[in-house]
Amino acid sequence: MSRFLSDRFSDIEPYTPGEQPKNTNLVKLNTNESPFPPSERVIRALNAAEISRLNLYSDPETKEVIAAIAEVLNVKPDQIMMGNGSDEILAFAFQAFCDKEHPPCFADITYGFYPVFCRLFGLNPEIIPLKDDLTIDPADYCDKNKPIFIANPNAPTGLTLSICEIKNILDTNRDTIVLIDEAYVDFGGQSAIPLINEYDNLIVCRTFSKSRNLAGARLGFAVSNSSVIEDLNKMKFSFNPYNINRLSIIAGKESILDTEYFEECIIKIKENREYTVNELTKRGFSIPESKANFIFAKPCGITGTEFYKKLREKNILVRHFDTERIKDYVRITIGSYEQMQTLINATDEILGR
Amino acid sequence: MSRFLSDRFSDIEPYTPGEQPKNTNLVKLNTNESPFPPSERVIRALNAAEISRLNLYSDPETKEVIAAIAEVLNVKPDQIMMGNGSDEILAFAFQAFCDKEHPPCFADITYGFYPVFCRLFGLNPEIIPLKDDLTIDPADYCDKNKPIFIANPNAPTGLTLSICEIKNILDTNRDTIVLIDEAYVDFGGQSAIPLINEYDNLIVCRTFSKSRNLAGARLGFAVSNSSVIEDLNKMKFSFNPYNINRLSIIAGKESILDTEYFEECIIKIKENREYTVNELTKRGFSIPESKANFIFAKPCGITGTEFYKKLREKNILVRHFDTERIKDYVRITIGSYEQMQTLINATDEILGR
Repeated sequence: MSRFLSDRFSDIEPYTPGEQPKNTNLVKLNTNESPFPPSERVIRALNAAEISRLNLYSDPETKEVIAAIAEVLNVKPDQIMMGNGSDEILAFAFQAFCDKEHPPCFADITYGFYPVFCRLFGLNPEIIPLKDDLTIDPADYCDKNKPIFIANPNAPTGLTLSICEIKNILDTNRDTIVLIDEAYVDFGGQSAIPLINEYDNLIVCRTFSKSRNLAGARLGFAVSNSSVIEDLNKMKFSFNPYNINRLSIIAGKESILDTEYFEECIIKIKENREYTVNELTKRGFSIPESKANFIFAKPCGITGTEFYKKLREKNILVRHFDTERIKDYVRITIGSYEQMQTLINATDEILGR
Repeated sequence: MSRFLSDRFSDIEPYTPGEQPKNTNLVKLNTNESPFPPSERVIRALNAAEISRLNLYSDPETKEVIAAIAEVLNVKPDQIMMGNGSDEILAFAFQAFCDKEHPPCFADITYGFYPVFCRLFGLNPEIIPLKDDLTIDPADYCDKNKPIFIANPNAPTGLTLSICEIKNILDTNRDTIVLIDEAYVDFGGQSAIPLINEYDNLIVCRTFSKSRNLAGARLGFAVSNSSVIEDLNKMKFSFNPYNINRLSIIAGKESILDTEYFEECIIKIKENREYTVNELTKRGFSIPESKANFIFAKPCGITGTEFYKKLREKNILVRHFDTERIKDYVRITIGSYEQMQTLINATDEILGR
């Protein structure tokens, strides 16, 4: 820390991203990326002609990718706002809709970035514990009258709330924002996007990093009513108007329009998830029912920390959180079938089977 | 505005970026981009193999591009931090180093984003008027004991301070940050980077958008001592750790290593600037001495607004600011020789020569 940093940041604790090693011999199952390359349409569209236009600024309104998303998700363009990854959208939402009088609330076990945003923006959140089985009790979020942030499916558990449960939360919090973070929804959850015309307090946050195979392009978006989108854009245009680069705008457009490849990838991930859950369950692991592209697995006969370390020694990277309630678990990204086979074989070696 | 936006943003006024039209028939001299494509090295490096890896996250520490910058600028890697454009770096600096007790100060006529950051972060800046000839009086910035933000060359004037003048400002403000925004320095200014080991209060901010022909890639960086860089990274890792996409990291690296092409482009811009200044001066324009890739020109016999509009009718886009002190001027980006010829010919038609 330098002697110039504002006192209000003296005890700031930034987010710790999952390891992004250069070593490509690793089986990388730690940051919930897709194991599949982007759509062929993306690879074709990012050609030398487009790259040679990188001397020109990108469109700060990102109209092209917004039009494509609007078409595919059946919403209006003014109901969408693009972020440099969904983390940026989440940051803008915490900044715009929370303050001392409106502190946010969210689960104790959820996306680890929410408390980081609170520290950054000086917010004192209400933390709501998950139930013992790691599920969210929707009743805990009714009549809060505070901005609510829920990841659905939740991370790192993969567990979901139904649309009925989300509706109930929206109904009983009419005067505050309810943000549903749907980073993983395409892998089996129910999206709240169809509710945006009914509830002016709903924001749905999405990403291209998981189901759209574009983590490296940094693209996320918010879907909400046009007034809330206007507010989020006020944050963006006060912070970094050209937040999306030229190539990612094109990549996003081509990727979302290739619905066939998207569905193909989703089917494979679901199959590989089923395979992995079955194999690990046979070996005594406990795994909550995941609707995401990862599973949260509690090994049998070995601690979470040990299992994580032993996989690491075998060049398999998964994610382990040193938080008391979940330290017995590891979060395993669902990769290709071959990657999951490697994981299962390594597990057998570790467990001495 | 929605009914959910925090009261503190009720009168927020976002930045208005220059127009980025889709129409490619326009002669675009309004946002200080390079008229030249990125280095051939960039075009070669962003190949199909790299694009097909966009399913993987980028390196949040952006080591590859930092190593290249460190090599070329002769600083240490831990003295550099990358932003999603230099706007993001500036935002982090305003956020990290200013607060109610440490309000920033900057010129009345300078980069228009500084007051926007102040509104976003609730800061009450001290605004220091330029002299009548639009120069900065360095004496105005001595012994301020407030964070200081100076664009050098200044925008939109193109006028510079010397390194001696910057040193004097640094010497008399030892206990607060002095940020020198060098977006345009490569076109003829003197960089303050060699001073970073001498002054722990200095931050130099740079961009790839102008002299590196990569506006559309969104890349900027800060150079400072490692403690200040650590503070800026705390902001980044609390806001958006994966702020740079995979392809821009590669583009930045290849671009900065191609020093030959860089110098070639700079020479052409300087020549075209000289040509444009000479031609416009012959036609009675007043133009402060620009060391940037733009000139700030006050036409003769026609108002700035009128000149801007008439150029627009002829499909030439320049930038006009409706601010009282500078409304008689237009800011003209220095483009290719052909573009500048078109501008001069159009000027002749407008002036009826």
